[in-house]
Amino acid sequence: VLLGSMQTVTLIPGDGIGPEISTAVMRIFEAAQVPIQWDERNVTAIQGPGGNWMIPPNTKESMDRNKIGLKGPLKTPVAAGHPSMNLLLRKTFDLYANVRPCMSIEGYKTPYTDVDLVTIRENTEGEYSGIEHVIVDGVVQSIKLITEDASERIAKYAFEYAVNNQRSSVTAVHKANIMRMSDGLFLRKCREAAENYKDIKFTEMYLDTVCLNMVQDPTQFDVLVMPNLYGDILSDLCAGLIGGLGVTPSGNIGTNGVAIFESVHGTAPDIAGADLANPTALLLSAVMMLRHMGLHAHAQRIQTACFNTIQDKRVLTKDLGGNAKCSEFTAAICERVQDLD
Amino acid sequence: VLLGSMQTVTLIPGDGIGPEISTAVMRIFEAAQVPIQWDERNVTAIQGPGGNWMIPPNTKESMDRNKIGLKGPLKTPVAAGHPSMNLLLRKTFDLYANVRPCMSIEGYKTPYTDVDLVTIRENTEGEYSGIEHVIVDGVVQSIKLITEDASERIAKYAFEYAVNNQRSSVTAVHKANIMRMSDGLFLRKCREAAENYKDIKFTEMYLDTVCLNMVQDPTQFDVLVMPNLYGDILSDLCAGLIGGLGVTPSGNIGTNGVAIFESVHGTAPDIAGADLANPTALLLSAVMMLRHMGLHAHAQRIQTACFNTIQDKRVLTKDLGGNAKCSEFTAAICERVQDLD
Ligand SMILES: CC(C)[C@H](C(=O)O)[C@@H](O)C(=O)O
Ligand SMILES: CC(C)[C@H](C(=O)O)[C@@H](O)C(=O)O
Repeated sequence: VLLGSMQTVTLIPGDGIGPEISTAVMRIFEAAQVPIQWDERNVTAIQGPGGNWMIPPNTKESMDRNKIGLKGPLKTPVAAGHPSMNLLLRKTFDLYANVRPCMSIEGYKTPYTDVDLVTIRENTEGEYSGIEHVIVDGVVQSIKLITEDASERIAKYAFEYAVNNQRSSVTAVHKANIMRMSDGLFLRKCREAAENYKDIKFTEMYLDTVCLNMVQDPTQFDVLVMPNLYGDILSDLCAGLIGGLGVTPSGNIGTNGVAIFESVHGTAPDIAGADLANPTALLLSAVMMLRHMGLHAHAQRIQTACFNTIQDKRVLTKDLGGNAKCSEFTAAICERVQDLD
Repeated sequence: VLLGSMQTVTLIPGDGIGPEISTAVMRIFEAAQVPIQWDERNVTAIQGPGGNWMIPPNTKESMDRNKIGLKGPLKTPVAAGHPSMNLLLRKTFDLYANVRPCMSIEGYKTPYTDVDLVTIRENTEGEYSGIEHVIVDGVVQSIKLITEDASERIAKYAFEYAVNNQRSSVTAVHKANIMRMSDGLFLRKCREAAENYKDIKFTEMYLDTVCLNMVQDPTQFDVLVMPNLYGDILSDLCAGLIGGLGVTPSGNIGTNGVAIFESVHGTAPDIAGADLANPTALLLSAVMMLRHMGLHAHAQRIQTACFNTIQDKRVLTKDLGGNAKCSEFTAAICERVQDLD
């Protein structure tokens, strides 16, 4: 048994398949004797007195207390004017860095092998500022907001991440040939940060060129840092290279240790409740969370158990090419976790 | 010999390898007896009396007269404040639709086969508006401008393209979940256009989802239509799937038949003048141009000669995996063109 005082983590199971895959993660954590207890909360948008959208106060309090959250998928709001809860969460806790490692999974065949890169996305501004106007009838402008502070913060985060994760290069992704002032500012901050990390190779590349090179040879990339929208695009592209959102983890990182880890796939309402969902993305997000909390041995053990189960090919969910139920796939991982003791 | 009155086309050979690959195209056109004569012009930025950048007046006159241009790569301006000549050309002639067909080339191996899609990019506004401000120190905004007119025009173009090119579906690519007003307007115009083309299947998809699906299975896509920046990104991604910008044609289409066809790769200064360049992208752009001019038989013959030469693998430029010179590759295509007579 690994020792350590129990820490509490806010768990937001989410909608659709969210509860099933959350249960899967809880079972695997139990099997691995992770010293974590869960504080389960839900997230539905609430309209505050001023009309502002907010997350439920008791969920906010839980996160303020625990600092760390794990989150399943949330359904897309249908009502007009209703914000994306995913975005609202990032905003509420100022989770400025969106981190998505993409690693080829041995035994899970895609057109690419040996992908091992990380996209680091500015998570608070850019095209996601939400500022839009109708100038005159038929003419709309959306504002992309780039600030020195946010750019500096994310650039520094990317280099710190590289250092702390034995990565050797950081590529700044931009369109400063077109958005000279905004992407220019972002790029300048990346260049300045690079000055302080001489051991990390720094390169800069246009977003379109990155996309082209990425599909030709993703192994040339290591850590990539970029403004919000570019990160949204590139992280999905990269997820596609290794098998999709069902196997790709994600973390939203703030200051003072605050962070929410989440699977970024959808709620899959068609199979919700049918014990058919694949919990891998949420599980690997939970593994990122364990590393964030310093629980490296637990993280490694669970990750190995998960990858070995996939590589073994005997017990796989349908999307992974098998015909096991979510609970069976989960049990297979639990068994391996215990064998790795 | 195919008959027809001679038409004149403005030829902008461009910089670096531009002149070599333009010569290659001219030789192949001669071998194919294409009823075209060239009006060769260059493009360097000129600053007008008011300080505005413009293209050289005699190039403008040539284009105004001929309406149709073929253009090699232009070097990226280094001086600050100096505009991209590529963009200036698109703007000067209001070339509102950027069309890039991506087709797998038999015999040229990439991780994908059977790619056959077309990206249609709004080419005049969006993130390319060039409007940017410093709000306060350290805070910059770039404006993405979406208009009803430009959106309607490009949406209609995409459906017309589908009809005229035996395509069965159009996908509108957007982030209207984030940029609700601007991308929302774009999307609405696509939906409205779709109403008038009931035989063409219409779908809409988030840009990030398109990227993910694209690298997993590009054969699911047909015609894609999108705002300016998304098109910049997606067209390069798609080019990557079939072998890169060295083999991907591009056309910029305006009103009243005005159009410029161009290879969108770089000037490759390292091999310029060494007879090593691959003229395929410019040649296939010229083939698009022939179709635009209604010279379908010539277009087909040259395209076949080019593809057969690549498939045959005996005479290929270095980037295509061979060791032939540009002139030898060109001669091989010329020979085949004549054989196809
Ligand atoms: C759900 C959506 C608002 C979100 C985004 O656009 O950022 C998603 O695509 C993501 O990448 O997390
Ligand atoms: C050269 C550059 C300004 C251009 C763009 O960004 O549109 C290029 O990437 C393209 O796709 O034609």
